Amino acid sequence: MVETTRRYVLAKRPEGKPDRDTFELEETGVSDPRHGEVLVRTLYLSVDPYMRGRMRDRESYAEPWDVGDPMQGGVVGEVVESEHERWSEGDRVVGNLYWSEYAVVDGDDLSRVDARAENVTLSSYLGVLGMPGRTAYFGTLEVAEPDPGETVVVSGAAGAVGSTVGQIAKLAGARVVGFAGSDEKVEFLEDDLGFDAGINYKTTDDYRAALDDAAPDGVDAYFDNVGGPITDAVFTRLNVDARVAICGQIALYNEEGVPTGPRKLPQLIATRAKVEGLLVRDFSPRFREATEQLHEWVANGDVEYRESVVEGFENAPDAFLGLFEGENIGKQVVKVAEPSE
Amino acid sequence: MVETTRRYVLAKRPEGKPDRDTFELEETGVSDPRHGEVLVRTLYLSVDPYMRGRMRDRESYAEPWDVGDPMQGGVVGEVVESEHERWSEGDRVVGNLYWSEYAVVDGDDLSRVDARAENVTLSSYLGVLGMPGRTAYFGTLEVAEPDPGETVVVSGAAGAVGSTVGQIAKLAGARVVGFAGSDEKVEFLEDDLGFDAGINYKTTDDYRAALDDAAPDGVDAYFDNVGGPITDAVFTRLNVDARVAICGQIALYNEEGVPTGPRKLPQLIATRAKVEGLLVRDFSPRFREATEQLHEWVANGDVEYRESVVEGFENAPDAFLGLFEGENIGKQVVKVAEPSE
Repeated sequence: MVETTRRYVLAKRPEGKPDRDTFELEETGVSDPRHGEVLVRTLYLSVDPYMRGRMRDRESYAEPWDVGDPMQGGVVGEVVESEHERWSEGDRVVGNLYWSEYAVVDGDDLSRVDARAENVTLSSYLGVLGMPGRTAYFGTLEVAEPDPGETVVVSGAAGAVGSTVGQIAKLAGARVVGFAGSDEKVEFLEDDLGFDAGINYKTTDDYRAALDDAAPDGVDAYFDNVGGPITDAVFTRLNVDARVAICGQIALYNEEGVPTGPRKLPQLIATRAKVEGLLVRDFSPRFREATEQLHEWVANGDVEYRESVVEGFENAPDAFLGLFEGENIGKQVVKVAEPSE
Repeated sequence: MVETTRRYVLAKRPEGKPDRDTFELEETGVSDPRHGEVLVRTLYLSVDPYMRGRMRDRESYAEPWDVGDPMQGGVVGEVVESEHERWSEGDRVVGNLYWSEYAVVDGDDLSRVDARAENVTLSSYLGVLGMPGRTAYFGTLEVAEPDPGETVVVSGAAGAVGSTVGQIAKLAGARVVGFAGSDEKVEFLEDDLGFDAGINYKTTDDYRAALDDAAPDGVDAYFDNVGGPITDAVFTRLNVDARVAICGQIALYNEEGVPTGPRKLPQLIATRAKVEGLLVRDFSPRFREATEQLHEWVANGDVEYRESVVEGFENAPDAFLGLFEGENIGKQVVKVAEPSE
């Protein structure tokens, strides 16, 4: 019998960078699942940059959290108790649950996790086979749309989304250049993932010159996870009819007020480039297609992935805060519990 | 016999705002037209904001002028002498010629002007029936794509392009809001052109609040001729799936270096808006369609236009410089000579 769980709630809205005081750990009761509900034990918890947006008191694509609300997030878990016909004790599931060790949720909101194939792990359903992987899949194929021989630039290239974007673009026959924040990440891109070039933005002064070296034919597609000065530089190197997918702007998320930077719209006239915001849920009717394709690529080794794992539920805030310091290579997850045998 | 002509050349590259010293008036010889060529007498000369870009020493969509090069521009003129089978003395033509009183040009580069229909004038082939009108036509119908009941915002709304954009959007059934730089212009939009609302950006402090009044349902399409703070404000009011056509950024053209402003890309994620650069020549295979449709709208009064006419060839630089002061309502042209009877 599970009677209580630990969970994190939003303790206060951050101004600028969130910190440990943004979160509060509390103990709360767990009710018995009612008809249609399932009690899930968290195995892995996902922390993602977009969650910063939900901490603001402002309507956006994801509903803002109120102070005191439990933090939500992607969870891979195990069914402990089921009152839903589809699920049985021991089933492995993935869903958008809570930063908690246990949760009672509607069984209709869960999907099955199948980690039997080679290279496929439970936690990969929070990364390459989950929301970040699907974001990369649709953003690359439907917005950036690289043709063979074109040059694709990815910012945040060593992250969960960016690392997958680059590999899908390589599969499409493009030359791929990634911006990342350490030499280790650049090696990961070039040596493990097959990127044509990586640029360490923390040790590079002149992003435009670096692009001229790494992308001498200009930029045909840009997948932006970061925003800010990297994006300013890439805009100056766009080719005619370039496509820009705005997926994330993590460099700006902790800025208060309205951050300023170079105005780049005149560049769009010269290039007739198309800049488009990307939100993966717009593609939800095609999620099954994406997950199946990604599963095949991962299982046969065409798409590789890495994960940064923080151990221990209580460390979830640190895992989240590390995203803004660029601490993770690949998907950042929190390991909360061992699966049962 | 025409033996010489006056013409303007680029005297020096402007830093910041161009001024009279940017231009030099010179007298130059006029050769006899060779086979296939035509001698044209300029009646009306067009001055357009994009010409500022050609004064820079930087490759862009229009080739930069060298210092000493003759200024080019749209001209409505009259054939004086023809060695081209299609043209005869007295024909009225339009083409991309020079800031000059006479020019010898390839007859293949000219189009015929037909100013017999009601409301259609010779000079309108430089405005509503010329490049600005076609820009408005394709930018509105192919990029902004307003549906009935949607809200379209236009910046530079009283200019040659903007005033036509708004009327085409009205014909498409949209609610139309225009930003313009004087009360006279706002009256022109609201009273003469049928815009639903005009905003005088020079007397309005808070563009967002003004938009909330004038576009209470948000902005579904934005046709941008101006850039800068107006565009920043409109971006904050974009609806989901909004379309933005970047046609001009006149507020930035005289800025040296890289002007800065609020970073608005996060707004694109929230709205999945699409921002696209617009260059009318990409639609050149469909120019005939556009001109015919615009001619019909103008002749039957569905689309109205106004022109600001500066008299006298020597005043062409002032007409051009006035564009950046917002002096013109509708298309700015220079009247160089009376047509012959």
